[in-house]
Amino acid sequence: MKDFTPEYIHHLQKIIEDHADDAARDELKDLHPAEIAELYHELDIDEAEYLYLLLDEETQADVLMELDEDERQQLLSKMDAEDIAKQIEHLDTDDAVDVIQELDEEEREKILSHIDDVEQAGDIIDLLKYDEDTAGGLMGTEMIVVNENWSMPECIRQMRMQAEDMDEVYYVYVVDNDDRLKGTLPLKKLITHPSVSKIKHVMEDDPVAVKADTPIDEVALDFEKYDLVAMPVVDSIGRLLGRITVDDVMDQVRDSNERDYQLASGLTHDVESDDKLFAQTKARLPWLLIGMIGGLCNSFILGKFEGGFVVDPTLALFIPLIGGTGGNVGTQSSAIVVQGLANGSLDIKKSTQQLLKELGVGLLNGGIIALLVFIYNYFTIGHGHEVTTFAVSISLFCVVMFASVFGTFVPLTLEKLKIDPALATGPFISITNDIIGMLIYMSISSWLIIALH
Amino acid sequence: MKDFTPEYIHHLQKIIEDHADDAARDELKDLHPAEIAELYHELDIDEAEYLYLLLDEETQADVLMELDEDERQQLLSKMDAEDIAKQIEHLDTDDAVDVIQELDEEEREKILSHIDDVEQAGDIIDLLKYDEDTAGGLMGTEMIVVNENWSMPECIRQMRMQAEDMDEVYYVYVVDNDDRLKGTLPLKKLITHPSVSKIKHVMEDDPVAVKADTPIDEVALDFEKYDLVAMPVVDSIGRLLGRITVDDVMDQVRDSNERDYQLASGLTHDVESDDKLFAQTKARLPWLLIGMIGGLCNSFILGKFEGGFVVDPTLALFIPLIGGTGGNVGTQSSAIVVQGLANGSLDIKKSTQQLLKELGVGLLNGGIIALLVFIYNYFTIGHGHEVTTFAVSISLFCVVMFASVFGTFVPLTLEKLKIDPALATGPFISITNDIIGMLIYMSISSWLIIALH
Repeated sequence: MKDFTPEYIHHLQKIIEDHADDAARDELKDLHPAEIAELYHELDIDEAEYLYLLLDEETQADVLMELDEDERQQLLSKMDAEDIAKQIEHLDTDDAVDVIQELDEEEREKILSHIDDVEQAGDIIDLLKYDEDTAGGLMGTEMIVVNENWSMPECIRQMRMQAEDMDEVYYVYVVDNDDRLKGTLPLKKLITHPSVSKIKHVMEDDPVAVKADTPIDEVALDFEKYDLVAMPVVDSIGRLLGRITVDDVMDQVRDSNERDYQLASGLTHDVESDDKLFAQTKARLPWLLIGMIGGLCNSFILGKFEGGFVVDPTLALFIPLIGGTGGNVGTQSSAIVVQGLANGSLDIKKSTQQLLKELGVGLLNGGIIALLVFIYNYFTIGHGHEVTTFAVSISLFCVVMFASVFGTFVPLTLEKLKIDPALATGPFISITNDIIGMLIYMSISSWLIIALH
Repeated sequence: MKDFTPEYIHHLQKIIEDHADDAARDELKDLHPAEIAELYHELDIDEAEYLYLLLDEETQADVLMELDEDERQQLLSKMDAEDIAKQIEHLDTDDAVDVIQELDEEEREKILSHIDDVEQAGDIIDLLKYDEDTAGGLMGTEMIVVNENWSMPECIRQMRMQAEDMDEVYYVYVVDNDDRLKGTLPLKKLITHPSVSKIKHVMEDDPVAVKADTPIDEVALDFEKYDLVAMPVVDSIGRLLGRITVDDVMDQVRDSNERDYQLASGLTHDVESDDKLFAQTKARLPWLLIGMIGGLCNSFILGKFEGGFVVDPTLALFIPLIGGTGGNVGTQSSAIVVQGLANGSLDIKKSTQQLLKELGVGLLNGGIIALLVFIYNYFTIGHGHEVTTFAVSISLFCVVMFASVFGTFVPLTLEKLKIDPALATGPFISITNDIIGMLIYMSISSWLIIALH
């Protein structure tokens, strides 16, 4: 594993500048494709392309997979369809589909027509039909498949042929004469049972498998639950279609966690700290504008109440407290729901139960905060400011109750409507609760002013 | 894969109530240990214990590993040290360490003294010495190790012996005569090169390995970068100590993402939607109280400025806008840093660069928002409220600039001090920015009142 220092990058750039092919090949030969891809972050596109062309086709293909989507696009845009097709042939079908999916229709056709291996091209075309967000969209067709009735030596002969083109083999899948998945054969059985007469006697029955239309987040939860490194994908009558590998699932888990985190933090697009200034502004401005509109709504609501501030100006002092508390409570409640749905600990069927529990939590938290603030206000501004003292604590209690229930209700409802519940977190919840909080505070204050004067 | 309906649970509870051992065994026999563990969520502890005692020792051990920590504690508290030791013997050493780590010192000693397999007990004791958050704390010692000078048939003979006790085998590690890791032998080589004279001719050189003291989040990034299913762990002179498997890394990634998400959402403890009411309150109240104190600070700051509100009461209307915008911007900035550090795209050495970029983003976003609000105010309250119109827009611009830089600076500084940067996200950032926002707003307003009157 290599750490690229600025000195090393500089040294490499010098080599590239001099077009010293042999020296450059020397630098690359001990690097893992993932490391070469990392190197590209530090180089400009022409330098990266120069190095790329020095690699053998298989490494080129591996590096291609390790690049970020926009870097890959840049590199591919410099190559013609035939060269791209050659590299696709070195990729597993699932990776090939990922690359091809990023291209437009016309380019896809051109590249597919240049792939010499007809079986591979056919598999890719089949895989392109699956929805990206399902098991089918994540699977590849490279796997070792044996028949349950074969003997171990026969299996090993067949496996030798099939394994030739594969990078790594972790499981062997066992099917019946109709291609239905019957079991898996852990590779250790090759060592421990070298001469068994029928594979079905040593295979593991009832393999964990997913249907091709299973949503990706369920697939990820199954991988975690059953501690798998690969999982077979079957059609509706149990015929083996392909396999999903754990590295793709891990990427998936990381992506979906980052999406949730970004939504909770008010970032609309997928944004990275190394993105350019304009991309960052574009990802961040939308929520800030929505927040701005929310803030202006609040100023409008407060404007309607200006008379109240004249009766007791101390009412204005607690505006941030009420709004902030509503926002904080709502964020907590919605985060608990989103996280529970993501890791499988919350079942959508138990919505009512979750709402009732939130009511309880709200009652406790709201009660404690309202009481503490009441005591504080009683001893500081209490005398002569009864309206404020009571209005603030009653409002805090109501706001906490409302925010708890609302923050739970919205993501649960989105999930039921099959919309990403994470949309309801972060700024959305805090802005809404801020506005509702102001409405509650102003209503209660007005009512108390009339009642107490 | 089974879905447990309420009807099924009810049916099972009836069997347990009748103590129908055979019927219960029948229900359990086709279930995966992870499914049995899931079943326990729906049963009470006595029911779960009844089912547990019907399982064979190996399944008991597997189920134990699949339970949540508190469920496991409950079950273990009903067993004596000898029974626990028996189950530990069925676990891989890394899992055994996880279980034993949850117990107190006295219990640990007792259980370890009951483990008959001295080699395993020794390995566990060695593993307990590593810090939980390092590669050493995550590794187990079950692996197949061969010498680089052995022939393939000799290897296979040795592997047959070593593989006997192992659940699954994905890699074979190759060492030299001094136990230093030299390479890995993918299992497919057993099939493709069955008779090679020395393993070192077909092994893969330069294996990706980690040192035992590597922090866990770096290990996770390496797993993702190199698409691995297992990784060897070595000591400082390259001797092979153990291996880390991808399932443990995935759990780790999920845990650390959940922690970041919870911190960003104002949840202090690890909290799940299915936790009890009191546990939830405990996890949520601390941040709410800090928010409350922040709100009271704000009321204090605003109180000092009451005279300003008398000069122009419309100043009060924009309190939520200023506070909210500061909070939103700060949350975005800190989230981008925390995420960048977590996925490796942001290097702490590039702090200055990141701060400069944030200044740029702040300039753009702040300028746009300040301008839009200025136009809005000019056409609504502008006439006669020049102080408010100017104070709000100037403050908004300053608050956005401040929050961008502050939200970037704080997590970067925490990371440098080796404190979890995620602590600086969520409520912490929004409360701080809220207070600073009020200070800025009130200062600028005061200054404008003096300047314009």
